[in-house]
Amino acid sequence: MSTEKVEIFDTTLRDGEQVPGCKLNTAQKLKIAARLDELGVDVIEAGFPVSSPGDFKSVSEISKLIKNAAVCGLTRAVKNDIEVAAEALKYAKYPRIHTGIGTSDSHIKYKFNSTREEIIERAIMAVSYSKTFVEDVEFYAEDAGRTDNEFLAKVCTAAIKAGATVLNIPDTTGYCLPEEYGQKIKYLKENVAGIHKVRLSCHCHNDLGMATANAIAGVVNGARQIECTINGIGERAGNTALEEVVMILKQHPSLNLTTNINSKLLYGTSKMVSQEMGMYVQPNKAIVGANAFAHSSGIHQDGMIKNKETYEIIDPSDVGVTKSAIILTARSGRAALAYRAKKMGYELTKLELDTVYVEFLNFADHRKEVIDNDIHIIMDLSRKRNRAIA
Amino acid sequence: MSTEKVEIFDTTLRDGEQVPGCKLNTAQKLKIAARLDELGVDVIEAGFPVSSPGDFKSVSEISKLIKNAAVCGLTRAVKNDIEVAAEALKYAKYPRIHTGIGTSDSHIKYKFNSTREEIIERAIMAVSYSKTFVEDVEFYAEDAGRTDNEFLAKVCTAAIKAGATVLNIPDTTGYCLPEEYGQKIKYLKENVAGIHKVRLSCHCHNDLGMATANAIAGVVNGARQIECTINGIGERAGNTALEEVVMILKQHPSLNLTTNINSKLLYGTSKMVSQEMGMYVQPNKAIVGANAFAHSSGIHQDGMIKNKETYEIIDPSDVGVTKSAIILTARSGRAALAYRAKKMGYELTKLELDTVYVEFLNFADHRKEVIDNDIHIIMDLSRKRNRAIA
Repeated sequence: MSTEKVEIFDTTLRDGEQVPGCKLNTAQKLKIAARLDELGVDVIEAGFPVSSPGDFKSVSEISKLIKNAAVCGLTRAVKNDIEVAAEALKYAKYPRIHTGIGTSDSHIKYKFNSTREEIIERAIMAVSYSKTFVEDVEFYAEDAGRTDNEFLAKVCTAAIKAGATVLNIPDTTGYCLPEEYGQKIKYLKENVAGIHKVRLSCHCHNDLGMATANAIAGVVNGARQIECTINGIGERAGNTALEEVVMILKQHPSLNLTTNINSKLLYGTSKMVSQEMGMYVQPNKAIVGANAFAHSSGIHQDGMIKNKETYEIIDPSDVGVTKSAIILTARSGRAALAYRAKKMGYELTKLELDTVYVEFLNFADHRKEVIDNDIHIIMDLSRKRNRAIA
Repeated sequence: MSTEKVEIFDTTLRDGEQVPGCKLNTAQKLKIAARLDELGVDVIEAGFPVSSPGDFKSVSEISKLIKNAAVCGLTRAVKNDIEVAAEALKYAKYPRIHTGIGTSDSHIKYKFNSTREEIIERAIMAVSYSKTFVEDVEFYAEDAGRTDNEFLAKVCTAAIKAGATVLNIPDTTGYCLPEEYGQKIKYLKENVAGIHKVRLSCHCHNDLGMATANAIAGVVNGARQIECTINGIGERAGNTALEEVVMILKQHPSLNLTTNINSKLLYGTSKMVSQEMGMYVQPNKAIVGANAFAHSSGIHQDGMIKNKETYEIIDPSDVGVTKSAIILTARSGRAALAYRAKKMGYELTKLELDTVYVEFLNFADHRKEVIDNDIHIIMDLSRKRNRAIA
């Protein structure tokens, strides 16, 4: 089986930026967009141009700046939204309009007070009208995760006929289980006329903590675009994390799927986005968290010192992290203590290590972490105690 | 199909506490253990007694305190570890020893410099010796995620014969894809003699962001215990998050799996653990993050105001969050603005709303969030402008 490419559609500046506390000004958006282009994303969703004059300006400036990635603007299935997006994307080298409408019964009834027939009409209108401005039109079937597959296939068929180049199947509420989401993509691959002409896209939310697993289930079942954000930020519990899906595909070569991402830039990009948005990344965040490559238990440290592969499946330098850390705490063992002590110039015999280790544990039980300076104190205490005994 | 119970094995105080910066003193551990018991977990892994005198004391004190959950202590396949754990668990109402050894080729070769035959011997010794102290013995096959299934089945068969009551199948390095991990559990269900007498347990790590999805794949395929932590803390990128798996099983009744957890205590427990450990939970964390129930985009806010179910699959009060928030930013629409203004006493006609909305967007483009006080300012500005025009 030959390797196929999965396109990375980054929506940090749209689904990410709409989060409370994350708003960016145009200069910040330009800085992040340039970095995303360098990172190698295929599409940058730059904003929702009709939403505010500031967002319009940001999309327009990003369109002028970006030379590699496609630049995309979000719209509702509303003519004015589409016109404003087209205007904002005017200078883009590769412009894409992202338009669509809710397709689940809940959205049709409560949000649009409409019918399935009308929704299909509006979908066709939105895609056809977008096509009068740009060639590349992505259609989203909002709440596809809760839309029954048969109706969803009808909507997709209509969108393809109207000229859509990409079909986005969002699990808007983050409800799907991976198997369920994968089956949905498979169903569409098998039941939508003309599906081979377009690219299916996964847009997953993290309300139950499965946005990443769902997107992977999607590409395993035939989707070839993942919509994601740096650090998994986004509405509510966020979106699929870009750094996670990229590293899953890279670490699982048997899936035969690759991306265009330069993984060595992942950590730096995460830092940049976190700082510009003021959105903290928790220490136990996969790939980019402060502890992602930190080993603290004695059992793990001993293994790591003997052979890194016992506990580390990713070489930290592959994602731009300088080195994995072995952190000394009360849960560390003799091997880690001896390793650190040796690095600091203390060569200990097995017998000496036993004595120093007891001193170390007494010390560490009262500390969160034992740092280099503490090691000197522990050595000193241990020596004094031995002298006292002798 | 009748509903079956999945036991929740909480390892916040062991795998969680061994994280850099998370160390707790005995008083803190007791406070959290009492809360976990109230939450309804089935097993509390209280620590690794041989690791330090402080940890021994914590396990011993927790054993005296806890009246509902089983209390568990970790050991290596080492006699002294097992003796010390048994001593620490002496006063527990339901004591469990958790012992085991690495079974992957990488662990056998680099960590133990041993052979497959010797590893099985050591596994049998560890379980048999533990059984001389307690009835309830859980065996872990460390790095089971990278252990070939045939050898893993042999180890499991031996552990059952030696008297293990629970078999823990850890994806120690967080490498497995959900389908792969699910298949491993299914293989063991089908190929291990005596498997019906024991409980299979999932212990997944989050290095690729799939610890939750992997644990769910495990129980779907026959495991009946999940090892997890509050907020998903744990070694490196952490473990399966307790709050996520509990809410997945609750929100997906078709899986026919339940837990004993009182979900209304989830948010409060998350806050307590985060504060005691000094481990920040990121705003976009599923279930317990500050933004998990916050809606900010105009499209979403409009939908939420019309009917909550359009964007919310979990009632926030089900996890102990007071209410979902509608936060005003430059991405908010007219519906959210009118809704908030009305709550503050401003009844706006459609025409008035149009004018105020323009003022709102100009204002919001320069702010992260628009708070109640800002609304008064915006109303005032809008009124003044109208007067100037008139």
